[in-house]
Amino acid sequence: MSAIQQYTVYLADRSYEIHIESGCLKNIGDACSKLFGQASRCLIISNDVVAPLYLEVLQSSLEASGWQVSQHIMPDGEQYKTIQTWSAILDTLMNRKLSRNEPIIALGGGVVGDIAGFAAACYRRGIPFVQVPTTLLAQVDSSVGGKTAVSHPLGKNMIGAFYQPKLVWIDPDVLQTLAPNQLRAGLAEVIKYGAIWDESFFNYVEQYAEQLHALDAEVVSKVIIASCKYKAEIVMQDETEQGARALLNLGHTFGHAIESMTHYTSYLHGEAVAIGMRMAARLSEQLRYAPSGTEARMVKALEALELPVDVPRFSAEQWLNVMGHDKKNVGSLIRYILLHDIGDAFIAEDVTDKDIHTLIASFA
Amino acid sequence: MSAIQQYTVYLADRSYEIHIESGCLKNIGDACSKLFGQASRCLIISNDVVAPLYLEVLQSSLEASGWQVSQHIMPDGEQYKTIQTWSAILDTLMNRKLSRNEPIIALGGGVVGDIAGFAAACYRRGIPFVQVPTTLLAQVDSSVGGKTAVSHPLGKNMIGAFYQPKLVWIDPDVLQTLAPNQLRAGLAEVIKYGAIWDESFFNYVEQYAEQLHALDAEVVSKVIIASCKYKAEIVMQDETEQGARALLNLGHTFGHAIESMTHYTSYLHGEAVAIGMRMAARLSEQLRYAPSGTEARMVKALEALELPVDVPRFSAEQWLNVMGHDKKNVGSLIRYILLHDIGDAFIAEDVTDKDIHTLIASFA
Repeated sequence: MSAIQQYTVYLADRSYEIHIESGCLKNIGDACSKLFGQASRCLIISNDVVAPLYLEVLQSSLEASGWQVSQHIMPDGEQYKTIQTWSAILDTLMNRKLSRNEPIIALGGGVVGDIAGFAAACYRRGIPFVQVPTTLLAQVDSSVGGKTAVSHPLGKNMIGAFYQPKLVWIDPDVLQTLAPNQLRAGLAEVIKYGAIWDESFFNYVEQYAEQLHALDAEVVSKVIIASCKYKAEIVMQDETEQGARALLNLGHTFGHAIESMTHYTSYLHGEAVAIGMRMAARLSEQLRYAPSGTEARMVKALEALELPVDVPRFSAEQWLNVMGHDKKNVGSLIRYILLHDIGDAFIAEDVTDKDIHTLIASFA
Repeated sequence: MSAIQQYTVYLADRSYEIHIESGCLKNIGDACSKLFGQASRCLIISNDVVAPLYLEVLQSSLEASGWQVSQHIMPDGEQYKTIQTWSAILDTLMNRKLSRNEPIIALGGGVVGDIAGFAAACYRRGIPFVQVPTTLLAQVDSSVGGKTAVSHPLGKNMIGAFYQPKLVWIDPDVLQTLAPNQLRAGLAEVIKYGAIWDESFFNYVEQYAEQLHALDAEVVSKVIIASCKYKAEIVMQDETEQGARALLNLGHTFGHAIESMTHYTSYLHGEAVAIGMRMAARLSEQLRYAPSGTEARMVKALEALELPVDVPRFSAEQWLNVMGHDKKNVGSLIRYILLHDIGDAFIAEDVTDKDIHTLIASFA
């Protein structure tokens, strides 16, 4: 399975390619030269876990294609997704005097991609950037679609921009060095696409859980390609989340709250989303939107993927207070993504605080 | 001259109105209610000089229309146009839990408008904002067109976004309280439009300098309306400065350098731009793009407007080093806006460092 897969995200003058190929990390130099012919310098942004593994191959490829490469290495971890870290990247950009047409290359997981993308969005009011995602979560979700951000102490990803990359360059081989819990966290976002739109894909992911954990190349490539297509299609429909794109937040309103209430120390993002999807499934049943058994199916699939499903104990007031800060909300209403069934999600505007009290009590 | 003037900036789903009317500050509440029907809360951002003068009338109008109004008052001055000040606004937005559809209203000059706009661009990846410009410079230039930014210690306006307001609400009456040097600084941007595109407007502004200094209502309204039209037209052609919009930077490459080298303490932005336009005129003659006498005409007009024209003394190396940081540059080339004549500006890509040495030496 070394076939090249390319997929175009069509967004007028912001269109770009997603390129998926085993071993493609070492070919990025030529790809960048084709895209950014005029430019001669670039800045790689990575973190102190990924850089020792993959920076050299990336930099060598770029230099072999004639690029002058600088680096900015940030510390690894969600807790560094801050205005301060972003500001330090801007200092590097200013000191290097990067010009408007010289790209940033983000090498890392979701945090690196989101923060590097937000720096690219703001430096000189926007310079090009390339996503080279190195975690499954970033490959199947966060590297595509142009949501960039940093977090605020009062809420995750609350400060950012919609700013599309010029290229997403995915090498599934890099997953070989990924920690198993990071792999599992990515699988939460993979099965999410099935839960939202495609029951058969949901079933496929559950069925092939073992092969996914073993990093079977063919199965892994297949789910990355499928996930990128789901993501790209919804981004093309609704780039700035005025409507349908919000479906991607299935499990995220609860998930973000879990991350926030546990101070981002107990769960990876994908793990929190898994628990959040379980909660969304139960709420869907509770409000009689989904048939009974929907939650059970969700739990069974998440357990096959070795994802957590136990809801941490907080009061309904705590949940509601934190979710009130979530940026998906319009007015004072909290919007939830719920299920009519596995493979059929929708945006619910009518969930009351009382419903949440009932839900939280049911987990007590 | 109390006629209402409205002008639409057409930018697809980012289109908005510029409303120019004497005394309109007290009517803003209804305008906001029409635009943002769903929302109930807003945040006014102003500074400690403007707020004591105009915050109350603005807030009363909004409250009379049913708005719940919060305030964020920043210190006055270019030196506060920083990531830190912007970050403090984001803290206020987070604490107030403003939602995606609740607007920011920027009441002040260019600094307030730019920084409030950049906060609106980034909070929850973008909430609506309204420009209520209170300086001439902001009314004729910075409030229209969606350039938002903060400055970096190494360069002015280097961190920002292209993010359009939903409304620009201009009350020329507020200029009555404007300091005379601030008024003059605004006139530099007014006559700039003439220098770029319209010799007859250039002559008009020079000829009516006295009425402008005296704040003659009819003449002032006329130049505000004309300036907003010039600005809106070029923004509609080239929203993100890929090409023609760069013409608006006439005098700005030199002007930004002057501001930076004098640490933003000696010249107002418009004053630095005036000197920069004189330098651009001389460089245009030096390179035989413009007929001899072009600089003299520029100097005569700027002096009629009581703007500075003396070039501060720095070495050519200092100029070039600072201008190399200017964000208008592509690759390692510094782009200059030069004149074929008064009323006919163009983008020069071929100015060499040697040309700048010659220019700076000629002012020694």
